[in-house]
Amino acid sequence: MPTTSDTAPASLTPAVRPNDAQNQADHPASLVAEFGPDEPLLLDSGHRLDHLQIAYQTYGTLNADKSNAILVCHALTGDQHVANRHPVTGKAGWWSDMIGSGKPIDTDRYFIICSNVLGGCMGTTGPASTNPETGQAYALDLPVITIRDMVRAQAKLIDRLGIDTLFSVAGGSMGGMQVLQWASTYPDRVFCALPIAAAARHSSQNIAFHEVGRQAVMADPEWRGGRYLREHTSPKKGLAVARMAAHITYLSDDALHRKFGRKLQARDRPTFGFDADFQIESYLRHQGMTFVDRFDANSYLYLTRAMDYFDLAADYDGRLASAFKGTRTRFCVVSFTSDWLFPTVENKAVVRALNAAAASVSFVEIDTDRGHDAFLLDEPELFATIRGFLSSASHARGIGLKP
Amino acid sequence: MPTTSDTAPASLTPAVRPNDAQNQADHPASLVAEFGPDEPLLLDSGHRLDHLQIAYQTYGTLNADKSNAILVCHALTGDQHVANRHPVTGKAGWWSDMIGSGKPIDTDRYFIICSNVLGGCMGTTGPASTNPETGQAYALDLPVITIRDMVRAQAKLIDRLGIDTLFSVAGGSMGGMQVLQWASTYPDRVFCALPIAAAARHSSQNIAFHEVGRQAVMADPEWRGGRYLREHTSPKKGLAVARMAAHITYLSDDALHRKFGRKLQARDRPTFGFDADFQIESYLRHQGMTFVDRFDANSYLYLTRAMDYFDLAADYDGRLASAFKGTRTRFCVVSFTSDWLFPTVENKAVVRALNAAAASVSFVEIDTDRGHDAFLLDEPELFATIRGFLSSASHARGIGLKP
Repeated sequence: MPTTSDTAPASLTPAVRPNDAQNQADHPASLVAEFGPDEPLLLDSGHRLDHLQIAYQTYGTLNADKSNAILVCHALTGDQHVANRHPVTGKAGWWSDMIGSGKPIDTDRYFIICSNVLGGCMGTTGPASTNPETGQAYALDLPVITIRDMVRAQAKLIDRLGIDTLFSVAGGSMGGMQVLQWASTYPDRVFCALPIAAAARHSSQNIAFHEVGRQAVMADPEWRGGRYLREHTSPKKGLAVARMAAHITYLSDDALHRKFGRKLQARDRPTFGFDADFQIESYLRHQGMTFVDRFDANSYLYLTRAMDYFDLAADYDGRLASAFKGTRTRFCVVSFTSDWLFPTVENKAVVRALNAAAASVSFVEIDTDRGHDAFLLDEPELFATIRGFLSSASHARGIGLKP
Repeated sequence: MPTTSDTAPASLTPAVRPNDAQNQADHPASLVAEFGPDEPLLLDSGHRLDHLQIAYQTYGTLNADKSNAILVCHALTGDQHVANRHPVTGKAGWWSDMIGSGKPIDTDRYFIICSNVLGGCMGTTGPASTNPETGQAYALDLPVITIRDMVRAQAKLIDRLGIDTLFSVAGGSMGGMQVLQWASTYPDRVFCALPIAAAARHSSQNIAFHEVGRQAVMADPEWRGGRYLREHTSPKKGLAVARMAAHITYLSDDALHRKFGRKLQARDRPTFGFDADFQIESYLRHQGMTFVDRFDANSYLYLTRAMDYFDLAADYDGRLASAFKGTRTRFCVVSFTSDWLFPTVENKAVVRALNAAAASVSFVEIDTDRGHDAFLLDEPELFATIRGFLSSASHARGIGLKP
């Protein structure tokens, strides 16, 4: 039985140290599951991984009949540290308001698992991981992976934990893509599913923004064709630009206007220069600079590519409903009014497909000006929706308060 | 009397040559007006330019009472080659469907002037121009300029041409900002004004996108603190990334979906790599690569900064209506439904201010899915609107068909 890891180990430092991200890739401050050549991971590209490491965190206690497990899937720049102090940044987990005792995803009732995605850089095999066959970081030698590959890897972890059926799979953005893929690929292993601010395919505009980010990384001469770790360089400037561009898409125009407007940064009048005159510039630069301390540039390439490739209907001759044919999973689809990256229209397309497949589905569009990032924020209606949906499903599943 | 330049000189080559952009900065294939220390240009920053060169094109013939002149203001990446073959790219001018004999801005009736903006790189003084005091390109030694500085420079050109009152000032995007600034700064010199897809201030989100572009340029080690011309390097990769990010904002999600969707580029299945698998990637890369052959990276910094600083109401205690107090200029404000960079709401704010100033104003929102770039495209309703507005105003102004 896995132990809980609610408390960060005492050895973790709260501040970023040089190479922490690289250390985490091989030696994560997390639980780890290893899979060798006898359990290879077959990939959509046709390649196979004979060595797979999955880093994960758990919270709460698995009950006797193993019916109370919730898999939380993280987004592009998230990781498994969903509800504990982050070992690199020292900050609270990205969903620490959502997960805990008495919280919407209640650790008194559920056993929560969150694993770093395949291709990530926090301990699950990714481009920054050391390739055991060469002793060097994989870099671009790692095959390009897909959302389905991520989900296949997660299924191996769930098998290893001895769990047959997950009570729920939940996540936002790229996490929501994984939720939809789980429900489609393993319909009998998901009792209820919570895709939030997601889509069944990546749009042309979203691919475009990802491509800008990748070009920014690859334009940095310190990227060195991806071999920066072995050449002891770091494409931080390129990755920071990528993060800045992406960050704009996570917010709404209204939220930016409300938060920053045209306010100047600690000055009364413009400097007539190229320093960060406006608060929004200063904020974006900070977002870019802090990101590069905790994230691997090649991981950014791999994960954005996986999202670009995601098109759930494509495997079913373009009929999304066929991806959910005969499903008995209960769905709750959530979108946000001001999310222009994964807008309501994309979430409604999922709902329509689920309806066409005669699935049990509820849909909530939450009115907020906070944009795509709303799924990470203190949004009372999101909290109430998740609490209510899981509570109702747990009654149907026969999960008691104390496992 | 200035001569017309409808036809590109025979010496112009249709293909891009190395350093063509740099050649154009000092020796443009255009008409040129020079202003020396006896006619300095005073700038908003407090600096003055003792040497100013303005490169411009004209089309049609100025009539005897000089009442038929239209100043066309170009956008961020446009230039004075509005209706002739471009001397660097060999392509048709950016508004060649709009301007010409029998076209909405009719060269049989009007005398059209378009000058490269201050800070540009096609012959008007900008960071790529040679500073006569040093013999080197200005680079970042050029003071940061504003939209009002651009308009002040244009007014000097209009003075030089002996024109007291412009029949019209017209332009889209950054060109529209100049139109609004003209009408506010020189109300008696503008008979009618046509701001298209513009705004009276740059929004927080727009500043954010500009900042990403600037950071992409400045992150390129070949930028060399702006001194790339004298060091014989070229920050092309950074500028290409900046252009790619900006280009997404010029289009709409719907237009991207219609034009590219998730279609693959000359292949049946994804390559599972980081090449341009999707058509949208290939298109964006092309946009980035072709842009850097004709545009100066420092100009991109200066012009985006000028747009960021634009806030017409700020000079009037935040009351935009005061910027147009007592105006007798006739206005026609045009926006596009799918423009999310300069959305209808920003254009309506201009209309409301004009109404509050009791100005003559008509407003047209054109239904199109083509996004901000619609002002450059073959949009029949835009053409009809401009033709009608100018025609009506020309009757009021007493301009005959043949000047």
